[in-house]
Amino acid sequence: MNLSPTLSTAISNFQLPDPLGFGRVTGPVMFVADYINGAWQAGELMTYEPIALNPAATSLQFAQQCFEGLKAFWVEQDEPALFRPDENAKRMARSAERLCMPEVPHTLFLDGVKAVTQAMKPLIPRRSGESLYLRPMLYGMDTQYPLAGSDNFRFAIVCSPSAAYFAKPISVLVERDACRAAVGGTGDVKAGGNYAGSIQATRRCIERGYDQPLWLDPVERRLIEELSAMNICAIIDGALCSPALNGTILPGITRATLLTLADDLGMPALEQPIDINSLLDDIDSGRCSELFACGTAAIVNPIAVLADGQRITRLQQVDAEAARFKAALLGIQEGRSADSRGWMFNSAE
Amino acid sequence: MNLSPTLSTAISNFQLPDPLGFGRVTGPVMFVADYINGAWQAGELMTYEPIALNPAATSLQFAQQCFEGLKAFWVEQDEPALFRPDENAKRMARSAERLCMPEVPHTLFLDGVKAVTQAMKPLIPRRSGESLYLRPMLYGMDTQYPLAGSDNFRFAIVCSPSAAYFAKPISVLVERDACRAAVGGTGDVKAGGNYAGSIQATRRCIERGYDQPLWLDPVERRLIEELSAMNICAIIDGALCSPALNGTILPGITRATLLTLADDLGMPALEQPIDINSLLDDIDSGRCSELFACGTAAIVNPIAVLADGQRITRLQQVDAEAARFKAALLGIQEGRSADSRGWMFNSAE
Repeated sequence: MNLSPTLSTAISNFQLPDPLGFGRVTGPVMFVADYINGAWQAGELMTYEPIALNPAATSLQFAQQCFEGLKAFWVEQDEPALFRPDENAKRMARSAERLCMPEVPHTLFLDGVKAVTQAMKPLIPRRSGESLYLRPMLYGMDTQYPLAGSDNFRFAIVCSPSAAYFAKPISVLVERDACRAAVGGTGDVKAGGNYAGSIQATRRCIERGYDQPLWLDPVERRLIEELSAMNICAIIDGALCSPALNGTILPGITRATLLTLADDLGMPALEQPIDINSLLDDIDSGRCSELFACGTAAIVNPIAVLADGQRITRLQQVDAEAARFKAALLGIQEGRSADSRGWMFNSAE
Repeated sequence: MNLSPTLSTAISNFQLPDPLGFGRVTGPVMFVADYINGAWQAGELMTYEPIALNPAATSLQFAQQCFEGLKAFWVEQDEPALFRPDENAKRMARSAERLCMPEVPHTLFLDGVKAVTQAMKPLIPRRSGESLYLRPMLYGMDTQYPLAGSDNFRFAIVCSPSAAYFAKPISVLVERDACRAAVGGTGDVKAGGNYAGSIQATRRCIERGYDQPLWLDPVERRLIEELSAMNICAIIDGALCSPALNGTILPGITRATLLTLADDLGMPALEQPIDINSLLDDIDSGRCSELFACGTAAIVNPIAVLADGQRITRLQQVDAEAARFKAALLGIQEGRSADSRGWMFNSAE
């Protein structure tokens, strides 16, 4: 891959942090493509730098913005490989449609993530559990005062060489006051607005010594939905259970992957409404043996404690089934296991 | 007021559009103040221009952003006067708190809107119904990959010399599918995310020949809330009625003002839950004689038609009481009536 001298120098001079952590640095490379006058322009690889935005652009006033998260792995493979980037491209297209933005063409999306990955090769961490985290984004660029969308948009991909989101089992706090997204809202797409409202509860939860809030459904407030930045799964009666997609939950790609992998591990997989009170009782009785978080950033991360106000529930088992799922997932992602479902995309092709 | 030569030239060279319309142009002046390392820096008046933002700033990824809308009027007064800017400062403080952003100090907010107004004097339209529309905004400036807020923020004020949002009575379409904000979400503050999800329904509504959707509550989906960019009021049994603030409705400053002005007009004012089906029946029976939109941008705007799917309901009376409220409001805003409540702030003081 031929890079500009500026870009090559930026990459050569870049130092990865130690410890690596999750999202501690932004890599020196970004990809940008503009949608102008109804057409996508050619994308360009460039040095990571601030972008110029109208201060009242729809992305900055009306949150006409969406993002994605995906990873390139380079552990056992000859070339860095992307995990299911086609699913991210599809989800970004759904997010864009919901927010009245143009679809980023599948090929532009894939070319962009591959270009950033290839340029970043000298900086991709290669230990198991580490990867190049990529964050594609789409924003409305035009100023609007009436409530209306933009006509012009920017697609940008930035990246962060990273380890997993959490380094240990996490504790989760049931969020009884705030809700993440309305029925008929934007909860099932990756709109920035879903996250803006989640920062406060996430921060409160961390201040109380927990790692993530567990959101409940916004109508009955009793069905579990997801954590702030990842989905949740439970092992109940020996089956992998994840909350059914109800229109307010983000359909996570790792979540869908685990539901598929359950079959390989000989475990039934269920998507169903999960009542928080039943779940707490099932943990007490042992019917629910294990809980874990899952997501691109989190991978598969065991949950040790589920707290609901003063009721602190400890999981009887931590990281037994979660470890099996994580091993199966990372085995494919890192090139140790056969990729029988065509999930891995070679970034050099 | 001493302006830089660049700013003076930009103002001298600026042409207002004809017709003026609402929000068709951004004035050549903006005000910017940064919050860095836990402290607000001095604000600066500068030429309106794009700002530099990290592409993955929390404002652009997680919609950690909020805005306000207020107006400076210069019709009968000696100096342009701002309408209730203290209320906008308070609401922005509430928005900021909900989104984990620092409060813009009251004095910084007022100094900023006054400075922009004074600099824009040569460009403030002076006919009744016209004004300088000001849009203060607050955004998170730091890049974050985990879900977390920024530590550094920017407060910016841009402006648009404008007429009213609509130039005629509007038709409104009940939105039965999408919802604007969740209970426990951000609907009662001016967060960008509330608006991102509203663009689609607003666009669909316009495509069908209507002007604004009427949002229903996100739980029972039967109580009216607001229009996409303004509140709604009804005249029922001779009283001014507006939907009760329930946590998902934006507490509009014009709405609150009209509820106060009703007393001056000898009309009872009620804030109460309003069921959409009852409202449609009340329009048919004549109990509800009139409907109108209200907001800083819309001022008081009559509604001629309320449509719910195939049921098209015409208001028996259009712009009778609305015209009285509008005259009372504009009388104060434009300096014809006494400002007995201290609502007007002289921008030169």
